[in-house]
Amino acid sequence: MKIIVAKTAGFCFGVKRAVDIAFKTAKKKQEGVFTLGPIIHNPQVIEKLKQEGIQPIEDIDAPGIEDIIIRTHGIPLQLMNRISESGFNIIDATCPFVKKAQRYAKLLREEGYQVIILGDRGHPEVQGLMSYAGDDAVVVDSEKALPKIKRNVGIVVQTTQPVEALKKLFGKVIEQVKNVKVYNTICSSTALRLKETAAMAKKVNIMLVVGGKNSANTTQLAKLCRSLSVPTYHIETSAELISEWMNGADSVGITAGASTPDWIIEDIIKRAKEIGG
Amino acid sequence: MKIIVAKTAGFCFGVKRAVDIAFKTAKKKQEGVFTLGPIIHNPQVIEKLKQEGIQPIEDIDAPGIEDIIIRTHGIPLQLMNRISESGFNIIDATCPFVKKAQRYAKLLREEGYQVIILGDRGHPEVQGLMSYAGDDAVVVDSEKALPKIKRNVGIVVQTTQPVEALKKLFGKVIEQVKNVKVYNTICSSTALRLKETAAMAKKVNIMLVVGGKNSANTTQLAKLCRSLSVPTYHIETSAELISEWMNGADSVGITAGASTPDWIIEDIIKRAKEIGG
Repeated sequence: MKIIVAKTAGFCFGVKRAVDIAFKTAKKKQEGVFTLGPIIHNPQVIEKLKQEGIQPIEDIDAPGIEDIIIRTHGIPLQLMNRISESGFNIIDATCPFVKKAQRYAKLLREEGYQVIILGDRGHPEVQGLMSYAGDDAVVVDSEKALPKIKRNVGIVVQTTQPVEALKKLFGKVIEQVKNVKVYNTICSSTALRLKETAAMAKKVNIMLVVGGKNSANTTQLAKLCRSLSVPTYHIETSAELISEWMNGADSVGITAGASTPDWIIEDIIKRAKEIGG
Repeated sequence: MKIIVAKTAGFCFGVKRAVDIAFKTAKKKQEGVFTLGPIIHNPQVIEKLKQEGIQPIEDIDAPGIEDIIIRTHGIPLQLMNRISESGFNIIDATCPFVKKAQRYAKLLREEGYQVIILGDRGHPEVQGLMSYAGDDAVVVDSEKALPKIKRNVGIVVQTTQPVEALKKLFGKVIEQVKNVKVYNTICSSTALRLKETAAMAKKVNIMLVVGGKNSANTTQLAKLCRSLSVPTYHIETSAELISEWMNGADSVGITAGASTPDWIIEDIIKRAKEIGG
């Protein structure tokens, strides 16, 4: 049985940076260091960090806090200010590409644009962006959700959105207003990973998609593979692998979301080889 | 035989304004007044203006010039400066929407954007826009002609372009650069006229499209009607009407370009009634 692993599988730049920051911090100091929410969307990495002494908290009012590590997706401006004013030390692991999107959202608001954020309202990255874009910012997950717009528009985009969604949104916006400024804050890593995964899914008998069940980009990879009619299994660890999946399979493709660490991917390759022979 | 005339047929706002300016100027003064190039793309209007004493010139070095009327499509900035420096009196009949596009082209250049003009390079409006957009401006008539772009892009559009062309251009640009500022300088009058003409062409037996053979927007109307498989005749005056065209026709649709005066349209309606009965 042949196992092919996607080159783009696993940690993107921002996630690698954040995880490095967290583990380096753990090496220097463990007491009083917390991440606000899960630092990335991968339960196994969160578990490893716990073992190193760094716990996630949901609220800065918890006792014993000295240092707070900010998650890759960023946090709202008001919360960042509150942490700062509360005297905690901030270790900012926000992805630099997300930071850039936050800066652009702020800039557009300051320039008087009606800011539109293309993204999922429930996602922490978008929650953060909204705080920079101002109270009247509009969040849409597709051009179909766009309300009537009256002012000149400035667009920023959740870093993991597909560029096609931005094109469609622009097409809808330009029919309503005359002046549109677009900051394409989409990070290419998601698009590259999707592209490579699609090409791979067409060539193999089954696909293993590895990553947090709570990871939007991993779920998106699994959805893509299923849409190409390849038997697809979204798993977090090798413990979930079932040998029947590989019955009669000549080739297995493996891809993984941006928050999936290499050691989990390697573990799955190893286990798949043991099972599949 | 039923004759239907499009509501949007004939003079748009900018053309009406320019022609009014020219005839009012003729009333006040005839000696030494010239239009630089044809003031609008309609030979019959130009001929009427000649009868009122206002001639078109191709070059400001012609003798006897005192006042120069600037055409609806505008002229290049350098030429405007030369006219001004030569001491001639400028009567600016540039369409206000074209003026706006010129201002935006200048603004984008000053803000450091790579200016892209969507339009026909050979059209006088685009020739004018290019002078405001700077020496490195890129002119494309469709997204397919877009070269490789390296700097942040600012887009302005020839006022008579279809909005679909702008959407396609944006889609191509956003794949190359991150920051794009769009001034949608398209004037809605062309789109409305095309829309009404298309609806009309589907309901009638023949279409008469009235306007200068050198008028881009009139030619576009005729092309649209032909694409809908309606027998279509592009004529400038009633003298061109041929009775055989109307043989067996129950209904005739009449539309006209932005530079076609009402008296020509009325003349054609009258003549069509005489012929068609």
